[in-house]
Amino acid sequence: MESAIPTQLRCPRTRPARASEDYVPPYPAFVARIKDSATQVAMAYFGVQYRAPGGKQAALDCIATWKTLLGGSDAPGHQDLAHYVDDAGFDNLLLIAYWDDVTAYRRWDARPDTSAWWNHPDRLKGDIGCYREVLSPRLANFETLISTPDSRHGVALVAEKVSEPIQEHGYWGGMRDRLPSSQTDALRAEGKLSLDAKPAPGARVRVAPHENLTLIRSGQDWTQTQGNERDIYLGEVEPVLREGMGFLNANGPSIGCYVNRYMRHVDDKLQPTELSFGMSYWRSLEQLERWAESHPTHVAIFGGFMSMVQKMNFDLKLRLYHEVTVAKTDEQFFEYLNCHPATGLLRGA
Amino acid sequence: MESAIPTQLRCPRTRPARASEDYVPPYPAFVARIKDSATQVAMAYFGVQYRAPGGKQAALDCIATWKTLLGGSDAPGHQDLAHYVDDAGFDNLLLIAYWDDVTAYRRWDARPDTSAWWNHPDRLKGDIGCYREVLSPRLANFETLISTPDSRHGVALVAEKVSEPIQEHGYWGGMRDRLPSSQTDALRAEGKLSLDAKPAPGARVRVAPHENLTLIRSGQDWTQTQGNERDIYLGEVEPVLREGMGFLNANGPSIGCYVNRYMRHVDDKLQPTELSFGMSYWRSLEQLERWAESHPTHVAIFGGFMSMVQKMNFDLKLRLYHEVTVAKTDEQFFEYLNCHPATGLLRGA
Repeated sequence: MESAIPTQLRCPRTRPARASEDYVPPYPAFVARIKDSATQVAMAYFGVQYRAPGGKQAALDCIATWKTLLGGSDAPGHQDLAHYVDDAGFDNLLLIAYWDDVTAYRRWDARPDTSAWWNHPDRLKGDIGCYREVLSPRLANFETLISTPDSRHGVALVAEKVSEPIQEHGYWGGMRDRLPSSQTDALRAEGKLSLDAKPAPGARVRVAPHENLTLIRSGQDWTQTQGNERDIYLGEVEPVLREGMGFLNANGPSIGCYVNRYMRHVDDKLQPTELSFGMSYWRSLEQLERWAESHPTHVAIFGGFMSMVQKMNFDLKLRLYHEVTVAKTDEQFFEYLNCHPATGLLRGA
Repeated sequence: MESAIPTQLRCPRTRPARASEDYVPPYPAFVARIKDSATQVAMAYFGVQYRAPGGKQAALDCIATWKTLLGGSDAPGHQDLAHYVDDAGFDNLLLIAYWDDVTAYRRWDARPDTSAWWNHPDRLKGDIGCYREVLSPRLANFETLISTPDSRHGVALVAEKVSEPIQEHGYWGGMRDRLPSSQTDALRAEGKLSLDAKPAPGARVRVAPHENLTLIRSGQDWTQTQGNERDIYLGEVEPVLREGMGFLNANGPSIGCYVNRYMRHVDDKLQPTELSFGMSYWRSLEQLERWAESHPTHVAIFGGFMSMVQKMNFDLKLRLYHEVTVAKTDEQFFEYLNCHPATGLLRGA
């Protein structure tokens, strides 16, 4: 067993961990280990919104263009394509790209073809809106958790390797304890989101970030499940998860959640696969903690998973993972082009 | 809103609270305020064990004697009588007495009649076994939580008053944050329980305590519930609570729980009333926290209560309370007379 915090980032704690040094978790879990030479990764959410059927082809063309752009020099180490319908009734496709080193991302982003596409005036008209939400956290400012070593998704897929079983999980507060920055920092939100233009169709709007904005991506992979486990997941667990995601959509702002997307991975033909995740932006890690720990909707989700674990005698084929970033302002970039005013972080500002 | 920690016990934290200073709980809760002039209270659990029907009359006589002893000078401010059947199949009656000032308890305990009864050789023979478990925490070393100002039970009934709504609740870690001692102390368990004699019928055994042994008493009062709320409590919540209590009885030692008693308040004729509580001794506060936060049995209990709160639209007639003591060795006294070897803390040693 080892600490979730990479060796080179451990330091004397001025803020004690919630679990004591001799704590032993009740079951194993693992984290992704990014290569030592990287100091900062990049997680880019490229979104296109449209109303089907009119905008669908344009959205597909947009995704195809992005895939081309994401090839070539300084390409990301991993990409996912996922879909959801937002509260305004728009379909959204997100192409999510991970770089294990922000310097490669920056070179990619500065490539003439990338830059030209995002800055082209055509982006501000037509049947689709586009957006990019890019977090580039230093290694101290994000953490991962994966249920089994083969459960790599998201940023874990650009990690060099998976850890040994780690200590800081299986209790409330583990998320914070796994964050290297939490050793010395309360990670309080400071400042407010603000916009540089009025959000409307035809507008290009950047969202100025605030300190310690928090992003969680939390996913499930049921491709390997069978029989009873599959029935329990699809029949009992997933409906409760969906309900909790719906609560965050409808009521998130009142508890510090700017936006929540319950997304399904899709293939190139937009056919759903057996992978899903929720991603949500929060004003602060603490507000995410409070929802997770005490809100009936998440207690129900957690209870459902725990009940499933018991019924399956701790032998699950369901794979679970999450990644949480608490981002400094210089690690955030949000831009919305020709999007409706409730898109993503526009709603939070 | 105010802090759960009494004004005179607040100090600069060397160990940060789990919730930040601007945290606002999602619903109100309250704590008991002991009178300022007291520095230490006393909570005495006087137990008699017997096998019905043979020992029942002797046990009732014992309770009657204790009630007489608990009258007169330096009487406790409150007493409860409660019953449960232990894992060895013995009935146990506990008369639980609270003093708001340990000096009064000490004078009472030193009274010739009290002292003579507990030290009489007859206590080591006959059909009953007797025990006393006395915690006398300084005000810094225990905390309370009550769901409504009229929900006073246990130590809250000897408190001078009830607080305003307090800040430190509604999240995991609130229990620790409410303990004044947690401001500067990790409250780790140190040492081991040990016995001064072999536990057996006919023996008088004292249990030498260890630092930071933890006692929780957590209760529910459904006397005021009606209709749907009553049906939900008795039909859905209580069975899950009972199952969780059963788990602790059967498996507690593997997770740091020395003993658990799921008790029902009874009247003088041993008829059950609509009040119950669980009381359990733990090796450490942390182990209690871990069970509460992550064990499926307690997650189910918590989920059941939360679901009930939602169904009743946050308007409950069910009353809830708890009290938690993390005791220094000089605040603990445990003695077992003519008891079976798995009684109370004898099992933990």
